[in-house]
Amino acid sequence: MNEIRQDKATKQWVILATARGKRPNDFHRAKEERRQLLSYDPGCPFCPGNEKHLPSILMEVPFPGSDSWQTRVVPNKFPALAPEGDTRRFMEGIYVAMQGYGRHEVIIESPLHDRQMAMMSSQEVEIIVETYHKRHLDLLQEHRNMMIIIFRNHGLQAGTSLTHPHSQIIVTGMVPNYIRWKEEEAQRYFDEWGRCVYCDILNFEMEDQRRVVLENSSFLAFVPYAAEVPFEVCIMPKTHQASFGAISDRSKSDLSTILQEVLARLHGRLGDPDYNYVIYTSSRNNANEPQLHWFLQIRPRLTTRAGFEIGSGICINPSLPEADADFLRQGGS
Amino acid sequence: MNEIRQDKATKQWVILATARGKRPNDFHRAKEERRQLLSYDPGCPFCPGNEKHLPSILMEVPFPGSDSWQTRVVPNKFPALAPEGDTRRFMEGIYVAMQGYGRHEVIIESPLHDRQMAMMSSQEVEIIVETYHKRHLDLLQEHRNMMIIIFRNHGLQAGTSLTHPHSQIIVTGMVPNYIRWKEEEAQRYFDEWGRCVYCDILNFEMEDQRRVVLENSSFLAFVPYAAEVPFEVCIMPKTHQASFGAISDRSKSDLSTILQEVLARLHGRLGDPDYNYVIYTSSRNNANEPQLHWFLQIRPRLTTRAGFEIGSGICINPSLPEADADFLRQGGS
Repeated sequence: MNEIRQDKATKQWVILATARGKRPNDFHRAKEERRQLLSYDPGCPFCPGNEKHLPSILMEVPFPGSDSWQTRVVPNKFPALAPEGDTRRFMEGIYVAMQGYGRHEVIIESPLHDRQMAMMSSQEVEIIVETYHKRHLDLLQEHRNMMIIIFRNHGLQAGTSLTHPHSQIIVTGMVPNYIRWKEEEAQRYFDEWGRCVYCDILNFEMEDQRRVVLENSSFLAFVPYAAEVPFEVCIMPKTHQASFGAISDRSKSDLSTILQEVLARLHGRLGDPDYNYVIYTSSRNNANEPQLHWFLQIRPRLTTRAGFEIGSGICINPSLPEADADFLRQGGS
Repeated sequence: MNEIRQDKATKQWVILATARGKRPNDFHRAKEERRQLLSYDPGCPFCPGNEKHLPSILMEVPFPGSDSWQTRVVPNKFPALAPEGDTRRFMEGIYVAMQGYGRHEVIIESPLHDRQMAMMSSQEVEIIVETYHKRHLDLLQEHRNMMIIIFRNHGLQAGTSLTHPHSQIIVTGMVPNYIRWKEEEAQRYFDEWGRCVYCDILNFEMEDQRRVVLENSSFLAFVPYAAEVPFEVCIMPKTHQASFGAISDRSKSDLSTILQEVLARLHGRLGDPDYNYVIYTSSRNNANEPQLHWFLQIRPRLTTRAGFEIGSGICINPSLPEADADFLRQGGS
């Protein structure tokens, strides 16, 4: 079983996923390969017909009007965290640690090996969002699941090794201090002003317009004022909502439309950059808080985090958010 | 002039270094090139004879018994921060920002283009450490300089574009919350136990031995219990010292020996991995604090920070710190 260890000085947690089985000689740099993909790869565990390579199938969502699945949720074959064990903390000498309790699942986004989200119809993307939502609600049923992170790694620079389109969900049995810090800042703002800081940002950005990329009735897509990386895009629900779990059907449809369009523009204008996206949502115990606000954040991997960023926590962004937004705004597909 | 912007929700600062002049089409992936280097490259601005490409020379330290320089400190040609402007904060709509005041310097580590630190004598490394120390003390003279980050990026994965061996110094006119959080955690521990948490870690690691890589009379090199990446190594002074600026001559010599040996082992055993190292030292206002402790941290770039790490702040380390230490311990050069 994996172990979760706490840094004694900073109280930050680290997951030791040694079950992934890397040994020193395994740390070879993977080679960048951008060959033309086909819609089926006989060696791909996520392609239909290769189910023998999957540990199990947790859930499937069919494409509307079809009998076959569009999305499939499966356990990660080399999970960072697993549902065995518990969330009690124990001491190892002077240090605090936990068993590697949690969940690590993969959402296969399409049966087609080459069907990137940037190319999908918004209806297809909606099935993916629907899958995220179902899984989010399911996983909240278990009282030990404190934090649910839904994310997508696209491309080698973004940390993915499998090209078949997929997202991931990791659930932890604790709330790390990185998240607590953010939640505490939002609490301080709420105490000071009586308003959700994210609602204030949203209203200002809608009025200011300079950093807005796209908008529909439920969502605003904008480049944050203090974006950490070039072409970072934040997609935020326009009405206050702390938890992604509370999203309505209408909003799911609107999220799919705007997400697909933003990804299509990044793909078209920046030449299919590698990127990560993450759904930031309130942790379990803060599901209905008036000061928290969920959002989806996309970070293209065009720059490299180096020594200064590691040491200071300050990012150096060589791009101006207003210029990035302008560039993406004009990129209508 | 560059600008420093604050994220309104998290209060994290971002440096907008648009003077670096990147436009969308400039974000091409640099190609990995590991060709055999020569000791002189006519196109390299850091090689002797090419001084016309340097903005100016701030300082030189000669090799003992020689007239010519071993290290040279020069301003970064594309600085993230610059000494113009001031550190007053101002509002931009609802947001807080500052001018891009600070310093960004390069320490050229050798006149030889191909003289990597892992290959140097410890005497040569000592000149580099001496240069760090002199520059650290000089930069502290200016009262606006609140945080001094000395770091080294080795290899393309670690964010460097120039192969000529060099380190960098960035100075900021504020202390970011990432550093404040760490300092507050150390303060809390000191309040609770009356001891420096880093001293406690040091004493435990020396006794436990399982994660120790190397030791000399002034320093311990060990893999942290909760290392965030494979083969992370922390080099920590064995006696309490909050600021790198307070290092003694004897300690400088010992730091050089142990640093060179650790880098040589990483180079020899892991095939010259890309890495970053950072000197973590107390910020200006905490120079003599009993609860803070400076150290040098080396992070090989063998894994990729992906969506989960970005979203949660939790790293997934596929390697066991005890096994990594064992591997490096046996790697005597």
